[in-house]
Amino acid sequence: ARPVRAPRGTALTCKGWEQEAALRMLMNNLDPDVAERPDDLVVYGGTGRAARSWEAFDAIVAALRALEGDETLVVQSGKPVAVLRTHAAAPRVVIANSNLVPRFATWDEFRRLEQLGLTMYGQMTAGSWIYIGSQGIVQGTYETFAAVANRHFGGSLAGRLVLTAGLGGMGGAQTLAGTMNGAVVLGVEVDESRIDKRLATGYCDRKAHDLDEALAQVEHARRSGSALSVGLVGNAADVLPELVRRGVVPDVVTDQTSAHDMLHGYVPAGLTLAEAAALRVDDPAEYVRRSTASAVRHVAAMRALQKAGAVAFDYGNNIRTVAYDAGFAEAFEIPGFVPEYIRPLFCEGKGPFRWVALSGDPADIHRTDALALELFPHDHALRRWITLAREKIHFQGLPARICWLGQGDRARFGVALNDLVARGELSAPIVIGRDHLDTGSVASPFRETEAMRDGSDAIADWAILNALVNVASGASWVSFHHGGGVGIGNSLHAGQVTVADGSPLMRERLQRVLTNDPGMGVARHADAGYPEAIAAASRHGLNLPMR
Amino acid sequence: ARPVRAPRGTALTCKGWEQEAALRMLMNNLDPDVAERPDDLVVYGGTGRAARSWEAFDAIVAALRALEGDETLVVQSGKPVAVLRTHAAAPRVVIANSNLVPRFATWDEFRRLEQLGLTMYGQMTAGSWIYIGSQGIVQGTYETFAAVANRHFGGSLAGRLVLTAGLGGMGGAQTLAGTMNGAVVLGVEVDESRIDKRLATGYCDRKAHDLDEALAQVEHARRSGSALSVGLVGNAADVLPELVRRGVVPDVVTDQTSAHDMLHGYVPAGLTLAEAAALRVDDPAEYVRRSTASAVRHVAAMRALQKAGAVAFDYGNNIRTVAYDAGFAEAFEIPGFVPEYIRPLFCEGKGPFRWVALSGDPADIHRTDALALELFPHDHALRRWITLAREKIHFQGLPARICWLGQGDRARFGVALNDLVARGELSAPIVIGRDHLDTGSVASPFRETEAMRDGSDAIADWAILNALVNVASGASWVSFHHGGGVGIGNSLHAGQVTVADGSPLMRERLQRVLTNDPGMGVARHADAGYPEAIAAASRHGLNLPMR
Ligand SMILES: NC(=O)c1ccc[n+]([C@@H]2O[C@H](COP(=O)([O-])OP(=O)(O)OC[C@H]3O[C@@H](n4cnc5c(N)ncnc54)[C@H](O)[C@@H]3O)[C@@H](O)[C@H]2O)c1
Ligand SMILES: NC(=O)c1ccc[n+]([C@@H]2O[C@H](COP(=O)([O-])OP(=O)(O)OC[C@H]3O[C@@H](n4cnc5c(N)ncnc54)[C@H](O)[C@@H]3O)[C@@H](O)[C@H]2O)c1
Repeated sequence: ARPVRAPRGTALTCKGWEQEAALRMLMNNLDPDVAERPDDLVVYGGTGRAARSWEAFDAIVAALRALEGDETLVVQSGKPVAVLRTHAAAPRVVIANSNLVPRFATWDEFRRLEQLGLTMYGQMTAGSWIYIGSQGIVQGTYETFAAVANRHFGGSLAGRLVLTAGLGGMGGAQTLAGTMNGAVVLGVEVDESRIDKRLATGYCDRKAHDLDEALAQVEHARRSGSALSVGLVGNAADVLPELVRRGVVPDVVTDQTSAHDMLHGYVPAGLTLAEAAALRVDDPAEYVRRSTASAVRHVAAMRALQKAGAVAFDYGNNIRTVAYDAGFAEAFEIPGFVPEYIRPLFCEGKGPFRWVALSGDPADIHRTDALALELFPHDHALRRWITLAREKIHFQGLPARICWLGQGDRARFGVALNDLVARGELSAPIVIGRDHLDTGSVASPFRETEAMRDGSDAIADWAILNALVNVASGASWVSFHHGGGVGIGNSLHAGQVTVADGSPLMRERLQRVLTNDPGMGVARHADAGYPEAIAAASRHGLNLPMR
Repeated sequence: ARPVRAPRGTALTCKGWEQEAALRMLMNNLDPDVAERPDDLVVYGGTGRAARSWEAFDAIVAALRALEGDETLVVQSGKPVAVLRTHAAAPRVVIANSNLVPRFATWDEFRRLEQLGLTMYGQMTAGSWIYIGSQGIVQGTYETFAAVANRHFGGSLAGRLVLTAGLGGMGGAQTLAGTMNGAVVLGVEVDESRIDKRLATGYCDRKAHDLDEALAQVEHARRSGSALSVGLVGNAADVLPELVRRGVVPDVVTDQTSAHDMLHGYVPAGLTLAEAAALRVDDPAEYVRRSTASAVRHVAAMRALQKAGAVAFDYGNNIRTVAYDAGFAEAFEIPGFVPEYIRPLFCEGKGPFRWVALSGDPADIHRTDALALELFPHDHALRRWITLAREKIHFQGLPARICWLGQGDRARFGVALNDLVARGELSAPIVIGRDHLDTGSVASPFRETEAMRDGSDAIADWAILNALVNVASGASWVSFHHGGGVGIGNSLHAGQVTVADGSPLMRERLQRVLTNDPGMGVARHADAGYPEAIAAASRHGLNLPMR
């Protein structure tokens, strides 16, 4: 065990705040309060890593400490491979993780190359150093559940039962986001320690060891209309079919087990955790056969609950594809959450905007919360979210905030943050980033680009252009990954992080990056023919030559 | 028919030379003297296109004419999709062509999406606007044949017979590059008009209509030791097996039919060109069955000639993979040309460096030839090449020169070109670019990264990092493609073009780009453990953190 924690405070350990920010955010990703398995460099999402090895981690840290303000560090799947002279307005770091030539883009080949020490799994924000703990996903999950409430339940989930599974790094946000919407949430999780982590961080209210106990609790809360979350120790591939058998139909059913990775993410039914860990090593092929069979039972049960009246949706972990490929033909009768609930936001350039206080001082985030409320006084969703977040969200690692913002607002807010730093109203610079799951940054036919209006689901040019545009605009670090939330072969996506250090140059760079980065999303959706995106493009004066 | 020709001379039609350069190079790619099928926007290499449609071409031209010196045009598979405010040291254009999410990276899916108007095939220099006609490949082919001569034939191909097929845009360089090395070349080409084009441009000496006639000519030349090239109208899948049957064994056998694309590139035996064209439309699946069967016979004949004593190598068109996938188990007994002949050059950052005179004036290229001879007086290969090229190479479209240069020399030469422009010794700016086939820009397990020392053939991070680094360094346009010379699924690769306009800013940008772009190649090969690359890195002072 080698605990890592980002430096706090206002003293630089690098030659500039951009380098310092990359260093602190890399370390913050591995903070034991933030990462799921920091000893293995695993941040979240199956095996999403921050660096390829501890040796590579040390070399990245050393390179960042020595990096000049006109140099760029090049990181290849978590390993630093070059330091190049560029210029002050170029990124300080460029990162590519897990990318494979398409013909070889299978889990088997990826794992073979990983074994050889040639690659690592970057997930979306793990290898790109902008994971901020479960809070990073809370708002997205909260807004998704709110959209479900609006669409199907007259605006509230009070008295409604949400059934899900997987309370890991991201999935653990579901219990809290559900209760924030008034719901009763039953979260099935095979690894008891994960439930304990959610209890400790205030993301989950109770733990149950058997189904009867859990059902008694949730039925009671459901009848009384009070919000409650219960983490049930169990395997979803057992529990969900059992609920079907008993005729217990939730109002909503979804899932966030790490089904994107059938070897390291999803646990087969019928094995203890220890047995599963042993089988994974002794006979990986048998493991994958068993986990796949379990996922089929799991998805079939979700589908049965859907037929019995539950609102069902896939929550971006590729479990439908796994079941479909293994022969469950009805898997895609369950819709994906993006086309159902998120795409209208993407059309306006909205996505999971986030910022982090490099000082480590929660007061800095509270000041930025106030800024958001000042700048967007008429945005009710934002006001409601900021208010709830301040009350319910425990910071993990460096204090951070997430808030979905769209075209125009992102740039306005980013520049205003830089101005706050310039005026000395914050104790140190702020890092501004986002998830790879965003409006213009990802090609992912089973999630972000599922069922595009023009059929362009699998076109990946947009993700690459987003990365190139972010470098051209002057982001502080830019990353391009393969795999991510839906696994090897299934997606390509880009990320950017830009540092508000209060300088005039960073002000310009923020203005450009935070305009062009979501702008590529509006352009992508306008090109696909979404009227909301075409309207947003003209409202924001985006220059789209063929629109 | 809508003939396109780049403007010549010193008058700008755009708002700056970078934009003007992109415009002229796009148009030059489609010049009837340069492109293979300009009416269909096809430049070379099967269906490698410069723009998605004529409508898209017009929109790109209009966007380039209006583009400011601090803006960036974004091109998605040959269609302009956005114009964004960036800054003066950022690229004027970023391009992504043919990229697909890996699971969908098959020819069938690509063609389905192409039919829907959502993508186009960019090849390597077609969609990235730096194709310069057959001359672009001549030197690479020339150096490859020279390496073959050195390795196997005591330094000369005089009196040696080189058998190949495919005299298209790239393949047509083989006949000339062969005779420049003293060889007798027999080039089998199914489309007579392609041979006529090579005759007209001085790339091929003679045409033959039947095998006996051709053999009589080549045997005569072989005996007399004089260089000669003969284009034989015929299908390689007929001619090569017939040579095997007759026991005619060449000294060298290779191939450059467009076998990377079994529908639009390779012509099945037993059909006239017209019949093939009809079948392609009426029954594409049957076409692919037949062309694949032909390719198997073709590769089997190459292998038989190899067993009979010929030096055989694959010349980067993926024909081995086609035959292997269709069941010919010995296909990979034929080595690829990169590990055999090119990788030692890549280890030193050497690759197909090229430059073009925007003025259209051949005198500008002659001045740059002289510069190269001045700058590198002790480089005998360079001197020999420049001398031969001046004598033998007809310019096509805008006058251009290619010359493989390595780490250090590229930056020196690029900056010196910029200085020539600044001093008014050239009549207009020079465009400096390269093929996507280069040292640090490509992931392609059947060609550029075949049989890497550390097994990293399929790792694609490097290609993406190359694109990001070129944007960060300030190239004028940067492109990222999927497919290219070996077809959909099989490669990812990046390109850069930078304009020497004589300004101090471009001087800096050239220095950075032409250092970092090949530098990524040296780093990539050093990371893979090649001692030549590790030595080159330390000789050139490259900062590689873990080496
Ligand atoms: N929708 C989104 O926006 C979004 C965002 C990020 C991640 N994801 C995807 O959601 C999934 C979860 O992400 P994470 O970061 O929480 O991953 P994680 O690996 O940290 O957690 C997954 C959890 O699922 C549990 N689990 C595995 N198999 C199970 C089974 N059969 N029954 C019950 N529990 C089981 C594991 O014990 C673990 O706690 C991943 O596939 C990820 O890619 C979706
Ligand atoms: N080695 C390299 O550096 C390199 C560089 C560029 C391209 N390539 C690859 O080389 C191939 C050729 O490139 P190109 O630009 O010349 O393509 P092209 O499409 O312009 O020409 C291919 C030629 O092959 C001919 N042909 C097709 N099937 C034939 C058959 N069965 N028998 C005889 N002739 C046949 C066609 O008529 C055409 O003239 C492509 O696959 C390309 O990707 C290799």
